[in-house]
Amino acid sequence: MKRNFVKFAAAALGALAVSGPAFAAPADAATAAAEAVGGGTAYILNTLLFLIGGFLVMWMAAGFAMLEAGLVRSKNVSLQCLKNIGLYSIAGIMFWVMGYNIAYPGFDGTGFIGGLIGPYAMQGVGEADTATGYSVASDWFFQMVFCATTASIVSGTLAERIKIWPFFIFTVVLTGFIYPVVVSWEWGAGWLDGMGFSDFAGSTLVHSTGGWAALAGALILGPRLGRYVNGKVNVFPASNIPLATLGTFILWLGWFGFNGASQLAMGTIGDVSDVSKIFVNTNMAAAAGVVVAIILTQILYRKIDVTMALNGALAGLVSITAEPLTPSVPAALFIGAVGAAIVVFTVPLLDKLKIDDVVGAIPVHLMCGIWGTLIVPLTNTEVPFMAQLTGVVAVGVWTFVLSAILWFILKLVMGLRPTEEEELAGLDRVEVGVEAYPEFVNQ
Amino acid sequence: MKRNFVKFAAAALGALAVSGPAFAAPADAATAAAEAVGGGTAYILNTLLFLIGGFLVMWMAAGFAMLEAGLVRSKNVSLQCLKNIGLYSIAGIMFWVMGYNIAYPGFDGTGFIGGLIGPYAMQGVGEADTATGYSVASDWFFQMVFCATTASIVSGTLAERIKIWPFFIFTVVLTGFIYPVVVSWEWGAGWLDGMGFSDFAGSTLVHSTGGWAALAGALILGPRLGRYVNGKVNVFPASNIPLATLGTFILWLGWFGFNGASQLAMGTIGDVSDVSKIFVNTNMAAAAGVVVAIILTQILYRKIDVTMALNGALAGLVSITAEPLTPSVPAALFIGAVGAAIVVFTVPLLDKLKIDDVVGAIPVHLMCGIWGTLIVPLTNTEVPFMAQLTGVVAVGVWTFVLSAILWFILKLVMGLRPTEEEELAGLDRVEVGVEAYPEFVNQ
Amino acid sequence: MKRNFVKFAAAALGALAVSGPAFAAPADAATAAAEAVGGGTAYILNTLLFLIGGFLVMWMAAGFAMLEAGLVRSKNVSLQCLKNIGLYSIAGIMFWVMGYNIAYPGFDGTGFIGGLIGPYAMQGVGEADTATGYSVASDWFFQMVFCATTASIVSGTLAERIKIWPFFIFTVVLTGFIYPVVVSWEWGAGWLDGMGFSDFAGSTLVHSTGGWAALAGALILGPRLGRYVNGKVNVFPASNIPLATLGTFILWLGWFGFNGASQLAMGTIGDVSDVSKIFVNTNMAAAAGVVVAIILTQILYRKIDVTMALNGALAGLVSITAEPLTPSVPAALFIGAVGAAIVVFTVPLLDKLKIDDVVGAIPVHLMCGIWGTLIVPLTNTEVPFMAQLTGVVAVGVWTFVLSAILWFILKLVMGLRPTEEEELAGLDRVEVGVEAYPEFVNQ
Repeated sequence: MKRNFVKFAAAALGALAVSGPAFAAPADAATAAAEAVGGGTAYILNTLLFLIGGFLVMWMAAGFAMLEAGLVRSKNVSLQCLKNIGLYSIAGIMFWVMGYNIAYPGFDGTGFIGGLIGPYAMQGVGEADTATGYSVASDWFFQMVFCATTASIVSGTLAERIKIWPFFIFTVVLTGFIYPVVVSWEWGAGWLDGMGFSDFAGSTLVHSTGGWAALAGALILGPRLGRYVNGKVNVFPASNIPLATLGTFILWLGWFGFNGASQLAMGTIGDVSDVSKIFVNTNMAAAAGVVVAIILTQILYRKIDVTMALNGALAGLVSITAEPLTPSVPAALFIGAVGAAIVVFTVPLLDKLKIDDVVGAIPVHLMCGIWGTLIVPLTNTEVPFMAQLTGVVAVGVWTFVLSAILWFILKLVMGLRPTEEEELAGLDRVEVGVEAYPEFVNQ
Repeated sequence: MKRNFVKFAAAALGALAVSGPAFAAPADAATAAAEAVGGGTAYILNTLLFLIGGFLVMWMAAGFAMLEAGLVRSKNVSLQCLKNIGLYSIAGIMFWVMGYNIAYPGFDGTGFIGGLIGPYAMQGVGEADTATGYSVASDWFFQMVFCATTASIVSGTLAERIKIWPFFIFTVVLTGFIYPVVVSWEWGAGWLDGMGFSDFAGSTLVHSTGGWAALAGALILGPRLGRYVNGKVNVFPASNIPLATLGTFILWLGWFGFNGASQLAMGTIGDVSDVSKIFVNTNMAAAAGVVVAIILTQILYRKIDVTMALNGALAGLVSITAEPLTPSVPAALFIGAVGAAIVVFTVPLLDKLKIDDVVGAIPVHLMCGIWGTLIVPLTNTEVPFMAQLTGVVAVGVWTFVLSAILWFILKLVMGLRPTEEEELAGLDRVEVGVEAYPEFVNQ
Repeated sequence: MKRNFVKFAAAALGALAVSGPAFAAPADAATAAAEAVGGGTAYILNTLLFLIGGFLVMWMAAGFAMLEAGLVRSKNVSLQCLKNIGLYSIAGIMFWVMGYNIAYPGFDGTGFIGGLIGPYAMQGVGEADTATGYSVASDWFFQMVFCATTASIVSGTLAERIKIWPFFIFTVVLTGFIYPVVVSWEWGAGWLDGMGFSDFAGSTLVHSTGGWAALAGALILGPRLGRYVNGKVNVFPASNIPLATLGTFILWLGWFGFNGASQLAMGTIGDVSDVSKIFVNTNMAAAAGVVVAIILTQILYRKIDVTMALNGALAGLVSITAEPLTPSVPAALFIGAVGAAIVVFTVPLLDKLKIDDVVGAIPVHLMCGIWGTLIVPLTNTEVPFMAQLTGVVAVGVWTFVLSAILWFILKLVMGLRPTEEEELAGLDRVEVGVEAYPEFVNQ
C-alpha cells in the first residue's frame, strides 16, 4: 500500500467502513454488519498504528547508535554516539521545517515551506482530522522517523574519519530536501507512483537513499588511514560486539513498526490481518538472512563471523521492506536469504574497490535495497519490473549526484576530514573531548 | 486461559459479542453517529493506552540504570545497577502498600492504608470496572511506574558515595509517602488542583520532586572525595559513553508513554488526536534540546560535549512534560531549547556551589521541571501563573524539607557514606562484592 | 488533563461519548448493548494484542543475549551473541517448518508437516480469518516467539564450553520437535489439558522445558575447565554487569507481553481488565523477587549480590507465569518471593553437585517453573494439584530424556566441546574469529 496515498481515498473508504459492509469478502449482509468497525473506532485504531509504529521506528535510532558504536574502534565511539543523537534531532526539526511538505505536496493548503506549520499548528486541542481517517500528527510522527532512519544509514559508513559539523550540515540537507524529494515521487503520489513503481516501506526510498548518500560520501571522503596499504586490507576490529548485537536486535524490533505500520491502517480486519502477515514475513526474511550468513561464512572462512550474522539479519530486513505483504513465507525466506548472500559477497568486493564502509551499510542498505525493490514483481504481479528498475535508477541518480555535489562543496568550504594526527588519535578527543571508555583502553 | 483453544469457540463468542448495534447515534448528524465509539470499545482503548504507556514508562527504569551506569566511574557501576533495579522494585511494592491510596484519596471505600488492596484484590477474573471507563489495574500500573521514575532521579545525583541501605530506606519513604502526598495535591484532586495548578505529566510532581529529594541528599551527603580540591573542580570522566547514550534513547522512547498516556484516554478521536499531538511536541522539545546543547557547548567549549547533548535531550523532555498538549510546534521547540540552555549553564553553577551531582539530575529534572511548569500559561491560557508558582514552591518546600529531615535521620542512625578508603576503592567491592568490569579496568 | 480526576466525570463523559448510558452496573440489557464490542473491532483488538505481545516477547531474545553476554567471561562473549541471534532465527524457521503444526494439531486441514504452510500461505492480501476471532498470522507470530524463548534458556547454561554447531543442531530439534510436542499436550488441547493441567503462559511448557534441556546438556557436557577443582568452587566473574542488568530489564519488559498477551484476547472489557491484572501481578512477583534476593544475600553473604538481585527478578517472573491472573497482589508477591528464595538456595546447591550452570538458568527457569506450576491451585481452585504434578513430571521426563539422547548423539557424532587449549583461549577466537572487546582486555 502506498504511504499517505490513502489520504485521498480516506473519506470515501471511511464512509464505506462505517455505513455498511466494511469489507466485501464475507458472504452475507448480516456477517458484514457484525464485522463492521465504526468510523470513530477505525480512526483511533489507524492512529494507534502510526503511534506504535512510530515509537518502534524511533527506537531504531538507538539501534543504529549501538550498532555503530559497537563496530567502530573505541577511540571514535563517543563521536558516533553524538552523531546519532544529533542526526535524529536534526531530522525531526528539518522534516518539520520543510521535509514533510516537499514529500507530500497537496496535503496542505498553504503553499510550500511552512505549509505543515499552518495546518498542524491549527489543529486545536481535542480536535481531530476526520477527513483523513487518522490523526495527521500521528502520520507526521510516523513519516518523520523514516526520515531520521535515512540519515542514520549515512552515519555508519563514514565513521572514524569525518568531522562532525560537515556531517551535521549534510544531514540538514538530506533530511530537509534530498530525501523528501525522493519520497514525493512515490509516497507523495508523484511520477514514480504514477508509472506503477511500488516500494511498500522503503527499500529504495529510505534504505537505498541512505546508501547512495553514504556511497557518495565514502568516495569523496576516502578510506580511513591505514585501511588499504600496499594492496592489503587491514581489518580494524569492532570494539564492542555485544553493543553491535544489541543494536541489531533493536533494529529488528523496530522493523516490525517500520514495515507493519506502513500498512497505514488497521481499522478493518483486512488491514490488521495484513499487518500480521507483514510481521511474519519481516521476521522470516531476517531469520533467513542470519542463517544464510552463518552458513556462508562458515563455508568461506571456516568460522562464523558474528558481525556478518548481524548484517545478515539487517540484509534480510532491508530486502523484504519493498514488499513485506504479498510474499508467501517461502518467498520471504528466499528474499531474505539472497539479501544476506549479497552482503556476504559485497563486503569484500567493496574492499577490493577501496571503498571503506565501516559498518557495511552500503551492502546492507543500498545493495539489499535494490534487490528488494527489483524482486517485488515476483510476488506482486501488478508491479511492472521496468517501473521498479526506473525507480531504483532515478533515486540512485538523484541521491548520488546531489549528495556528491554537497559532499564536494562541504569539502571545499570547510573540509571533511580531521588532520592525520587527529584521525590517528581518534575523533573522540578532537571533536568531542570525551572518551568513550577512559578506564578500559590500554593506551 | 488455554492458548489457541479459544479458536474453537471463537465464532460463537464473536456472534455473542456483536449481538446488537454496538453504538448508535448521539447528537448531530450521520457524521457524529459514524464517529461515535461504543462504551465497551472506549473502555478497552483507554485501558490499552495505560498498558502501553505503562510498559514504556517501566522501560525508563532501564534507561536511568544505563544512563547512570554509563556516567559513573567503573568502580561504582555494579552498585548503580543494583540501586536501579532495587528502587524500581521497592517503588512498586510501596506504591501498592500505601502510595496509591495516599495519592488518590476517595478512590476506594475502605479507608487509608490497605484501601487499594481491598478493591483491587476484589476485582474478580473477567470482571471489569465499568464505572471508571478503564481497568483500575491498568491505571494503577501506569501510576506506579511514575512513582518509580521519581525514585530513579534521586539515584543518579547521589552516586559513587552513598551506602546502599540508607538509599533503599529513603526510597521506601519517598515512594510510599513523600511523592504520593505531592500527587494527592494535584492529580488526586487536592488543593493545588483546586486553585488551577496544572502539571500534565509531571514536570513538577515527578521530576522536580525527584530533583528536590536529590538536592537535599547531595547537600547532606557532601561531594565525592577529591571532587572539589583547593577551589578546583576535578572532572571524573564517565566510564561508558555508549551506555549513557543508550540510557538517553531509552528515556526518550519511554517519554512517549510518559507524556502520551497522561492524556488518560484514547477512546475518542479527540483523545487519540491529542495523544498524537503530544508525541510530536515531546519529540520536538527533546530534539531542540539536543541541538541547543550541541551549539552551546561548541561555542562555550570549542568542542561538543556528548554528555551535554544527552542531557539536552532530557532537558527538553522534562521541560515539555508539564504541558505537552497545548503548545504549537514552535512553542514546543522553544520550551525544549530553553530547557537545554538552563542545563548547560546550571551544571557549572552547581560545581561553583560545590554541590556534586554526578549525572546532572538536578539541572535536568529540578531546574527544567520548574521551567516547564512556569511556562505552561504561555500556551495554556486557562492556567494562572500564580498557581504554577505556588505549586512549584509548595512541592519544593514539602519535598526538600521532608527529604532533608529523612537524610539527616539516616545519617545519624546508620550513616550515609562509606569510609574514605572504601569510597576510594569503589563501592562495588564494598557494598556489592561484584565488580562491573573485572577484566577491563587497569588497576 | 488531570490524572484520575477523570474518574469523577467518567459516567457523564461516557454518556456523551456513546449513545446511551455507556457504563453503569451491567444489570440491564441496554447497558450490556452499550458495552458490547463489535465483532470486527474485537478481531482487530485481539490481533493487536498478539502483535504487541509478540514484539515484546521477540525483544526478550535481546534480553537473553545481553544477560548472557554480560555474565560470561569476555573471551566467550562474541559466541554468546552469535548463539542468541542464531537460535532466534532457527526457532522462527523451525516453528514454521513443523513446530506449529505439531503444537496445534487440528488447526489446519492439510495434514501434519506443512499444514501451516498451506493455510497460512493461502491467506490472501486483505483477507482475514474471521472464524478465529483474530488473524492467524498474528497468533503464529506470538506462538513462535515463545518457542524461541525456550531455546534461549538453554543457551546460557551451556555457555563458555560448547561448540556452536552442536548447539545449533540441538536448537533445530528442540524448536522443531521437543518443545512443540510439549505444547501440543496442553495448549494444543492434548491429554494434559484434558486432565485439568493449567499453565497460563508457560512456567512449565516454556521455562521448565528450556531448563530440562539445559540440565541434560550441562550433565553431559560437564563443567567448564577449572570450575570445580579439589572440591573447591572457582568463581568466574561476570564480565559486564550493566549488560546483564540491561538484559534483565529487557526480559522484565518483555514479560508483560509474555504473560499479558497470553490472555489471548482483549476484545471485551473483561479480557482487557484481565490483561491489566496480569500486568500488575507480573510486575509484583518480579519486584518481590528482587527484594527477597537483596535481603537474603545481605543476610547470607553480608553483601548484596547484584547478579542474584537480577536473577531474583527473573525468578519472580518465571514463578508467576503459570498463573498470573487469579492471584491477588499479596499472593503474587508471595509466589515471586518464594521463587527468588529458591534461586538463592539452589545456585550453591548446583555447585555442590558440580553442575555448572553459567547464568543460573536451571534455578531460575527449571526450579521456579516447577514452583510456579505447583502453586497454581492455591489461587486457582479449579486446577487439581495432581494434574499440575503430572504435567511437571511428564514434561520433565519427555524433555530430559529426549534432550539427553540428543546431546549424547551429538557428543558421539561431532563432539560437544572444543579442546582444552581452545576452551582456555576462549571460544570467540576459535569459533567466531572475532573477539568481543579486542581493545579492553588485558592479555
